[in-house]
Amino acid sequence: MSNEPKKHWKAKLHEIIYEADTREGKLFDVILLFVIIASIVIVMLESVDSFASKYHGLLNIAEWVITILFTLEYIFRIITVKNPIKYIFSFYGIVDLLSTIPKYLSFFLTGSSSLVALRALRLMRVFRILKLTRYIGEYTNFVRALKRSKAKISVFLSFVLILCIILGTIMYLVESDQDSGFTSIPRSVYWAIVTLTTVGYGDIAPATALGQFIASLIMVMGYGIIAIPTGIVSSEMTKKEKKKIPKNTKVCANCNEDHHADNATFCHKCGHKL
Amino acid sequence: MSNEPKKHWKAKLHEIIYEADTREGKLFDVILLFVIIASIVIVMLESVDSFASKYHGLLNIAEWVITILFTLEYIFRIITVKNPIKYIFSFYGIVDLLSTIPKYLSFFLTGSSSLVALRALRLMRVFRILKLTRYIGEYTNFVRALKRSKAKISVFLSFVLILCIILGTIMYLVESDQDSGFTSIPRSVYWAIVTLTTVGYGDIAPATALGQFIASLIMVMGYGIIAIPTGIVSSEMTKKEKKKIPKNTKVCANCNEDHHADNATFCHKCGHKL
Amino acid sequence: MSNEPKKHWKAKLHEIIYEADTREGKLFDVILLFVIIASIVIVMLESVDSFASKYHGLLNIAEWVITILFTLEYIFRIITVKNPIKYIFSFYGIVDLLSTIPKYLSFFLTGSSSLVALRALRLMRVFRILKLTRYIGEYTNFVRALKRSKAKISVFLSFVLILCIILGTIMYLVESDQDSGFTSIPRSVYWAIVTLTTVGYGDIAPATALGQFIASLIMVMGYGIIAIPTGIVSSEMTKKEKKKIPKNTKVCANCNEDHHADNATFCHKCGHKL
Amino acid sequence: MSNEPKKHWKAKLHEIIYEADTREGKLFDVILLFVIIASIVIVMLESVDSFASKYHGLLNIAEWVITILFTLEYIFRIITVKNPIKYIFSFYGIVDLLSTIPKYLSFFLTGSSSLVALRALRLMRVFRILKLTRYIGEYTNFVRALKRSKAKISVFLSFVLILCIILGTIMYLVESDQDSGFTSIPRSVYWAIVTLTTVGYGDIAPATALGQFIASLIMVMGYGIIAIPTGIVSSEMTKKEKKKIPKNTKVCANCNEDHHADNATFCHKCGHKL
Repeated sequence: MSNEPKKHWKAKLHEIIYEADTREGKLFDVILLFVIIASIVIVMLESVDSFASKYHGLLNIAEWVITILFTLEYIFRIITVKNPIKYIFSFYGIVDLLSTIPKYLSFFLTGSSSLVALRALRLMRVFRILKLTRYIGEYTNFVRALKRSKAKISVFLSFVLILCIILGTIMYLVESDQDSGFTSIPRSVYWAIVTLTTVGYGDIAPATALGQFIASLIMVMGYGIIAIPTGIVSSEMTKKEKKKIPKNTKVCANCNEDHHADNATFCHKCGHKL
Repeated sequence: MSNEPKKHWKAKLHEIIYEADTREGKLFDVILLFVIIASIVIVMLESVDSFASKYHGLLNIAEWVITILFTLEYIFRIITVKNPIKYIFSFYGIVDLLSTIPKYLSFFLTGSSSLVALRALRLMRVFRILKLTRYIGEYTNFVRALKRSKAKISVFLSFVLILCIILGTIMYLVESDQDSGFTSIPRSVYWAIVTLTTVGYGDIAPATALGQFIASLIMVMGYGIIAIPTGIVSSEMTKKEKKKIPKNTKVCANCNEDHHADNATFCHKCGHKL
Repeated sequence: MSNEPKKHWKAKLHEIIYEADTREGKLFDVILLFVIIASIVIVMLESVDSFASKYHGLLNIAEWVITILFTLEYIFRIITVKNPIKYIFSFYGIVDLLSTIPKYLSFFLTGSSSLVALRALRLMRVFRILKLTRYIGEYTNFVRALKRSKAKISVFLSFVLILCIILGTIMYLVESDQDSGFTSIPRSVYWAIVTLTTVGYGDIAPATALGQFIASLIMVMGYGIIAIPTGIVSSEMTKKEKKKIPKNTKVCANCNEDHHADNATFCHKCGHKL
Repeated sequence: MSNEPKKHWKAKLHEIIYEADTREGKLFDVILLFVIIASIVIVMLESVDSFASKYHGLLNIAEWVITILFTLEYIFRIITVKNPIKYIFSFYGIVDLLSTIPKYLSFFLTGSSSLVALRALRLMRVFRILKLTRYIGEYTNFVRALKRSKAKISVFLSFVLILCIILGTIMYLVESDQDSGFTSIPRSVYWAIVTLTTVGYGDIAPATALGQFIASLIMVMGYGIIAIPTGIVSSEMTKKEKKKIPKNTKVCANCNEDHHADNATFCHKCGHKL
């Protein structure tokens, strides 16, 4: 008998946490959204030295509050979900776990342990931002669209990489005697990528006439081949849009005419009932 | 009786101000266009120290002349329009008011008041450029097109932002020991945005091999995902163009059904001959 | 009688100069192409101080040879063309004239006249490169395509300009106290253009946190709205391609079926002769 | 009799080297893939001074092992292929040869010969990366797609080049008195390319107001005309996708005409029933 009210309580909690139809469900989502954003802001502010030294205590308390809230959320999600194992090993399950662990681990690592591991742990909290993707509607569609043109994009990227390695090596040959930053092939390849993608930092820039000539070729090339991924995605998206247009596949039994309008009841050619 | 000529005078002024069919209407538009552009040029020149100190008096007079002209325009627009309240709170009503106020307010703020507020006020006059949008024909179509793909673009931008926060944090972890400018996470995220969007200032640039490797990944990523907004807008525009293609405009005389197929001879709804 | 052979000589020259069907015509084109490219290379080399001082005499002789060749070409074009006046005032007529004049004028200006005018004149010779456009096949199609989407591109550019003026002014307000290069509104607008177009020199870069935040917004905006001209041109080009597809507009006299294949002689529906 | 097992051995080797259906064939491909990548990594690491001086001996041994492996592969490919001459002068034949030669030549050049030639030879080994293109599936399709739009892209690039030469010359006229890096026309043209392609290193940047104004124009132009190659490739790709849509594959039994309309019942050429 005591089992039933408990189950009811679970079902209600499930509704609040996993759905957004009820008033409580919406409220939960809005609060969680703010906590996530606040959490990211705190991680960022902690890295600003002038700010962190001033408000160290405050940031620590806020971080503990957020960690406890995320822990409660994680526990409640496990309790209320039908298949906890599946949830725990799902993308969002792992993200939810990673959102809580770092602060607890930092508790054990404090003082004696290595500072680098501690900092890496602390920064891992930034992955909490992935919790946000739950709230972005078309997000999964978007990822799916990227996955669909994965093969073509891989070919394109391997093409860009091969190009950059060859061009970077040529530039290393041309510019390595100069004081222009082409000190090794990996650096030259890095420069080729910076140039081909039209980023152009300017930390490494050719100094010789020949180097500048080759650089110009790379730039124009980069300016031209940026068209390729765009073409891929554009044609992919246009194709998708076309598929959305519903077609009527009915064929008239009298005259075999097809391509009827979607809401056709009679054949537009002979007037026979479809 | 004295009311009628006044009304007539109002109607004529309305025609001059709001329409461009008559010779006076066109002249008004051309003059206003030049005054707006002159006004923007003056605001800009005032900020150039060498110029401002030399021609301070002249700029002040020009500014007063323009302010008075805009004030007259604003008053006449209110007088001649049918629904003044609606105009005052419309986009252009607010822009027209903002075009006149700053100079008058600067009159009261001079000397005693804070200089920052004064400068902000003075620079607000640059929003007068929004008055220009009245004269750009396809402008509203353009804004509408942007609004239509707002949802998709928001998803894309949130995707870019999440990516930049994660990548910026990783780069902070890798590069913060170096003297390469990654002094805090917000700065690293700023750098990630600068890199992903292929702007590449070079004020912050990775110094370690690992940092340059990650930077290369971000650049290639940025080079690739620029295709996505392009694909969105391209397919949106192609869709729009397609809608323009004239379709069968016949309407069934029996059931008033339209949207028949182009080669329809009979109504697809009731079988009546078209 | 002496008029006829002369006319014949003129006609033959016209064929050589204006057409490329004969062996002489092709040879003329190839020689002219090389002379134009040589001419551009010489103008460029003259500007390289180390090179110009060393080979001054040689460059001068080469320049005179090229000028005389272009002068002869210009005279022959006028003599052989049917309507010399129309040619002289055409685009290529003006370009051909500008290709010869500067060197002659430099003869009169030497010594006594202003050096700036002389240098400007000398550099005008670079416009000889426009002579090359005669040899680029699809060039006029290309220019026509640009002209067709001129209206839309103008709206887009005015949108970009208004955005840059407003954003530049805001950045001036935020950053002008810093030593980061935002010394006046025009410079700030210049920076906004450099950033929005994703060029990103880095000669001016925001130093404050707020400035970097606004800069990030501008970059993401620029990254997004680059899609608009691409969308315009893409949909324009797709439209053009579609128009190229020839359609058969024949309708069967027996069954009124249309959309026949282009080479159809019989109706594909009822077998009736079209 | 001894000839036949040898032939059999050749056929098996051919299967392993040229095909990937058998287990041995797959293993061969995977090993070759790793050897190629290892080879590229070694060439790159050799150029990093701190690394090369430390592990000079190790790198040399690894390089010899790889060279011998590539030599064996080259010999086996010649032996097993049906037409060795055709293979030797094919693209991959030359790439395979270039992958082995440099190390052997470096053996003869050591000490006495010029260092520059030696370094060039050593870097030539980076072209081994082209061996990778054998393993990228859609690669040839990709190259074909680029070749198809070669004419349009050439026109576009010549347009960009002419623009950059003219704009670079104008900037040289405007900025050459300043200390902003516009020291010669070739350098100014280089800057124009850097700016138009939105790379923007910042090593050369305009200092005068007029120069910055012209630079802004170039940037906006570059931002706009990047749409053109994108448009070309997009429409090319959309066209390609359309061709993929299956068409009526029926062939008339009477006249062998194909390419009938999708809903054809009778041959559109001779009227024969399909």
